[in-house]
Amino acid sequence: MKIQNVVVGAGFAGACIARRIAEEKNESVLVIDKKMHIAGHAYDEYNEHGVLIHKYGPHIFHTNNKLVWNWLSRFTEWNNYQHRVLSYVDGFYVPMPISIETINSLYNLNLSTFELESWLDERRLKDLLIKNSEDVVLSKLGRDLFEKFFKNYTFKQWNLDANQLDASVISRIPVRHNRDTRYFSDRYQGLPTLGYTKLLSKILEHKNIHLLLNTEWSNIKPDLSYGKLFYTGSIDEYFDYSLGNLGYRSVKFEYETFFDREYFQKVGTVNYPNDYDFTRITEYKWLTGQKILQTTIAREFSSSEGEPFYTVPNASNQILYKEYTKMIPNNVFFIGRLAEYKYYNMDQIVERVLFLDI
Amino acid sequence: MKIQNVVVGAGFAGACIARRIAEEKNESVLVIDKKMHIAGHAYDEYNEHGVLIHKYGPHIFHTNNKLVWNWLSRFTEWNNYQHRVLSYVDGFYVPMPISIETINSLYNLNLSTFELESWLDERRLKDLLIKNSEDVVLSKLGRDLFEKFFKNYTFKQWNLDANQLDASVISRIPVRHNRDTRYFSDRYQGLPTLGYTKLLSKILEHKNIHLLLNTEWSNIKPDLSYGKLFYTGSIDEYFDYSLGNLGYRSVKFEYETFFDREYFQKVGTVNYPNDYDFTRITEYKWLTGQKILQTTIAREFSSSEGEPFYTVPNASNQILYKEYTKMIPNNVFFIGRLAEYKYYNMDQIVERVLFLDI
Repeated sequence: MKIQNVVVGAGFAGACIARRIAEEKNESVLVIDKKMHIAGHAYDEYNEHGVLIHKYGPHIFHTNNKLVWNWLSRFTEWNNYQHRVLSYVDGFYVPMPISIETINSLYNLNLSTFELESWLDERRLKDLLIKNSEDVVLSKLGRDLFEKFFKNYTFKQWNLDANQLDASVISRIPVRHNRDTRYFSDRYQGLPTLGYTKLLSKILEHKNIHLLLNTEWSNIKPDLSYGKLFYTGSIDEYFDYSLGNLGYRSVKFEYETFFDREYFQKVGTVNYPNDYDFTRITEYKWLTGQKILQTTIAREFSSSEGEPFYTVPNASNQILYKEYTKMIPNNVFFIGRLAEYKYYNMDQIVERVLFLDI
Repeated sequence: MKIQNVVVGAGFAGACIARRIAEEKNESVLVIDKKMHIAGHAYDEYNEHGVLIHKYGPHIFHTNNKLVWNWLSRFTEWNNYQHRVLSYVDGFYVPMPISIETINSLYNLNLSTFELESWLDERRLKDLLIKNSEDVVLSKLGRDLFEKFFKNYTFKQWNLDANQLDASVISRIPVRHNRDTRYFSDRYQGLPTLGYTKLLSKILEHKNIHLLLNTEWSNIKPDLSYGKLFYTGSIDEYFDYSLGNLGYRSVKFEYETFFDREYFQKVGTVNYPNDYDFTRITEYKWLTGQKILQTTIAREFSSSEGEPFYTVPNASNQILYKEYTKMIPNNVFFIGRLAEYKYYNMDQIVERVLFLDI
């Protein structure tokens, strides 16, 4: 079967690549996914109790990139949800990311935004050589906040101490110097009104795009001839793990549905850095805005077993990833979180695709 | 690309055929559908108000065939919904199909089940030669009931008078001689607990089945070589309408969602044989059992324009259909409502597939 372009993976990366090729080059694209559904880990569905959930964990779209926002807005309306996260620490629910509200609540203070800077300055470890994630936090917030919010959470999440993790892992968690208690401060925030699966279905719905589900790339590869291949899956899997396995973290979800209350918690997500074995609880109704009497929550347990959710950024993985990239053929392009072994938010991957040379 | 079996259409017929081949013969199957979704006209989805609807009209599963029920029950649980239909006639909502309750309500009588027979016997046209649908009703129920329930409904539905329609069209509407006011009296009734789309997704989820969506058969045919082809689409379309077009009826849906009441009507479906231009109103919550404050209804308008929903059983279509069947190649099998130009209920098509020589 002769196809001009093949895209492996029907998640954000794959769907957006396929659409650009179909539309801008008017070429045929075969999008292949090993699952029975599109949308990758952004897949959402109604559970058996009629509650819309994100099957692979909470996805909140946020971007400062007007191009990205406008491009996606061709295919969806948005509910303009703005994510809020609380962290349960010492018996208090305090805002995340750490802001003046967090510190005032936790230490029973009444600092002004002007005083926060010097308060942190007295506590943070200055002139620390930043070698890892622990150093990042110590240098920004000092030891007490590190221990309250990051030390145990990091271990739960990665099964590694913060000093064994690249600085990059934690540096994407900002500290707020204003009164904004939203989790993200991007200009454009929200969830697709009809959900991510419908959004990606709209993106894929083009006469030049054909969608092959429930199909492993490795099984169909011998039967296809194609011009270009855009691969969005794991790079080590693509090369049959011939140089060894890259590290990934997976997540297990425990769901619970309540019929006796409209909401379980006060915000979309509550982090549990120190208590229990789960890292956080997300209540999907907050995100989706669904009007319904029952409510479903998901407790997340980080795991080394299961399909890859997060890459593990450390030196040995980076070296191995680089080795794999040397094997990439000329007509194959690796795009996306698993293919580039790099943390991308949804907006970042759309931006990556919009500027891609297709 | 070499494939052992191709199935065109991912509705009930196609999904069940694919599963049988994948499982019983352990051969590969490529299932192709021109839509972006599976499940054909049984497709259900949550609308923008979070109400689960049947996008192509109400589907209520019912069967007396234990084999069919058990086979499907491998892939789903059932909500055991039993369909009830009222017909709005002369300002009264009366049970359909016509039963003793219907007649007692409408004529302000108090007939017993024993008296119904003779009441009908006085009215029905005896010794009528049954040539068409009008004759069927006149011979069973007489002229007054024909005019109240069938005359205008038939014209709305088919844009043909009942005397222009094959007897077979109306003879599947039974008359009840007992007090049972359910629409169906089959032993097994219900909707799949998680919906038809999830049921068909489960049926299709097998390692030997690959699912190609958003793809017209005619476009991909030149690129494929295959052993057997099971085609579930329209037979005239398959042969490029070379002998002419078969007749079909389509349906347009007008949706309305109410936020100020939990239910719109008293039963799942209300027929409007004489009033308004729509044929019936279905309120999906009755069927699905969804617990939610808002409710969505669909008004159905029969139409000659749009994609085929119903075949039009009359002599000229039957002749044309037979002509097409003479052109069917040896390795191609036409299965299903559109492929066999024949009305099948869902259970009938599953039964057809279970006894198919694959």
